Amino acid sequence: MTSNPVALAQELIRCPSVTPADAGALDVLAGELRSRGFTVELLTFGEAPDGPIRNLFARRGDSGPHFAFAGHTDVVPVGDVAAWSLDPFAAEIRNGQLVGRGAADMKGAIAAFVAAIDRAGPLPGSLSLVITGDEEGPATFGTTKLLDWMEANGHVPDACLVGEPTSAQRLGDMVKVGRRGSVNAWITVNGAQGHVAYPARADNPITRLVRILADLKGRLLDEGSDWFDASNLEITDVTVGNPATNVIPAQARARINIRFNDLHRGSELEAWIRETVAAHAPANEVEVKISGESFLTEPGDFSAVIVEAIEAVTGVTPELSTSGGTSDARFIRRLCPVVEFGLPGQSMHKVDEVVAVDDLERLTDIYAELLRRWFASR
Amino acid sequence: MTSNPVALAQELIRCPSVTPADAGALDVLAGELRSRGFTVELLTFGEAPDGPIRNLFARRGDSGPHFAFAGHTDVVPVGDVAAWSLDPFAAEIRNGQLVGRGAADMKGAIAAFVAAIDRAGPLPGSLSLVITGDEEGPATFGTTKLLDWMEANGHVPDACLVGEPTSAQRLGDMVKVGRRGSVNAWITVNGAQGHVAYPARADNPITRLVRILADLKGRLLDEGSDWFDASNLEITDVTVGNPATNVIPAQARARINIRFNDLHRGSELEAWIRETVAAHAPANEVEVKISGESFLTEPGDFSAVIVEAIEAVTGVTPELSTSGGTSDARFIRRLCPVVEFGLPGQSMHKVDEVVAVDDLERLTDIYAELLRRWFASR
Ligand SMILES: [Zn+2]
Ligand SMILES: [Zn+2]
Repeated sequence: MTSNPVALAQELIRCPSVTPADAGALDVLAGELRSRGFTVELLTFGEAPDGPIRNLFARRGDSGPHFAFAGHTDVVPVGDVAAWSLDPFAAEIRNGQLVGRGAADMKGAIAAFVAAIDRAGPLPGSLSLVITGDEEGPATFGTTKLLDWMEANGHVPDACLVGEPTSAQRLGDMVKVGRRGSVNAWITVNGAQGHVAYPARADNPITRLVRILADLKGRLLDEGSDWFDASNLEITDVTVGNPATNVIPAQARARINIRFNDLHRGSELEAWIRETVAAHAPANEVEVKISGESFLTEPGDFSAVIVEAIEAVTGVTPELSTSGGTSDARFIRRLCPVVEFGLPGQSMHKVDEVVAVDDLERLTDIYAELLRRWFASR
Repeated sequence: MTSNPVALAQELIRCPSVTPADAGALDVLAGELRSRGFTVELLTFGEAPDGPIRNLFARRGDSGPHFAFAGHTDVVPVGDVAAWSLDPFAAEIRNGQLVGRGAADMKGAIAAFVAAIDRAGPLPGSLSLVITGDEEGPATFGTTKLLDWMEANGHVPDACLVGEPTSAQRLGDMVKVGRRGSVNAWITVNGAQGHVAYPARADNPITRLVRILADLKGRLLDEGSDWFDASNLEITDVTVGNPATNVIPAQARARINIRFNDLHRGSELEAWIRETVAAHAPANEVEVKISGESFLTEPGDFSAVIVEAIEAVTGVTPELSTSGGTSDARFIRRLCPVVEFGLPGQSMHKVDEVVAVDDLERLTDIYAELLRRWFASR
């Protein structure tokens, strides 16, 4: 048992838990939590190909109020290992920086959760940790299954902080109070092949696809909302694959992605995509996958407590943002208010991922301050 | 020496002269022409990879007026030989039909040229045959080189008939008095790669390419001219090749083809394509290849003679058309008025290519009638 977030982060980084491997990371965490009086459940969900996945739910106390920390111990692959200046799983400290895969995203924050529990002192109510081993993977057998299990077993928290690396330039400058939703669509337009010299005898699917894409891209989805940037559509791929200069091809395909704010729902966007495609191409196939709806934890008491804790430790006033990609917070939102705050994320998913030892210490102080203030405010 | 167009067509078909091979076809033709008093030049042009190519120029007489027949002895590959119901190079006759690769395109017409010379009787002036072995190939060392040689050696004709299979449904229903031009363009748009969640940090080349293609396709090039259908642009390929749903790619490419009439020039269209691309995508690469300018032999005395010859033999009044793909007539046009007339082309380039024996006889009569009438009209 260690109350030193740096030592614990090192121990976690030394478990090469590249999704879907756990590599002992959750056992390290389970041991630390049990020694602090937590009841720990190690929950394995799913089967091949996306599973099985190990996850952890730990709780101390059985009364309310109930606060939860959430995160993940899995990490993305190291990429070109030769490009790292230090072994990505050695967790060495160089010039005050702890280097290793997961240092920022987000074993550092998990170590800070644990150390913050010690620093916070006695707390009324319950404290939980909701940790998945499948945030960087398909997320099929991770947080969503864990949340189902928590609901079924009476462990719904009153508030949850996700420790993703939300800080932008320096620790404390950004808190995420929501995330945009994301939808992908695969569009296939079928036409009729023919010779370019006889266009009347053919039906060029590319002409139709260009009109579809121009219409889709041409719509101003919105101009942003109170807490969100404007929704945005990007065409991410187009494929025909016709080598013959004198041939009109039979089929053309494209893929789009929409990042959307709280003015839209995935199902409404799906219907709009399908209508737009059908308007220009009667012979079409459209596959739509809604990766997540947008969510917002309306800034209020909960975010105020986080802002105060950050200000108290760092002197920095964070921006309340909804920018960036998706995170598991989109799933947690259905159980309780959720806000995300963690380390600077510049190095995440890159070579030489790094966290400043000093930031890890101050993040631990912020989380401890947050626990004290949140329980005091209930 | 045979005055039977069917026997000569058979002899030519039995030479498997798939481009660039000659396989003795031009020697057969040279023998027939020499025995009729022609001076024959067998001219080999070019080197690998598009050459060497054998071509033939033959002339009888050295005064004006000077009439030329033009064509090619090379043929396209047989394709799936097992799908043929008869050996493609056996030149067998079945139910009054001569079957074989080149029967319609255009060894049948070349045999008819030769037999028509006999049937026409004595003619004043000069008669030439301009025969290439590279019409179905890159055409680099075929007709264009042959025309250069003819110009350099004082053999510019006053009029030329190309024996391509221009008839549509039945012999005599269509004469080609021109052809549209053709231009291909390869368009590459360079952007800046990035994550779909941060579009402001990226520059999506697909968005730019869609605007370019919508603009290019959106312009009405013209509504046709006196003798031509409307010019037409087709997008023939689009390629990005980005597998990642959350990535904005760095580059997008497309290829277009324009078939254009006598209201346009290739260079003007090239400039328009480049301007349109540059207007939407400062970082672009555009490669343009003008396969041929449009040409028209304004209907008049020459076409009138052909129409009269066709009517006299078949009773059919041909449509004067400029439809379809390109042909070597586009090169010949710079030397003299050129018109194309030949067999029905439905089976050309296909399995079981065929010519009716009866059509071959009547085509010979038409060509003989044409020679008599053309020389009489001078
Ligand atoms: Zn993460
Ligand atoms: Zn031909």
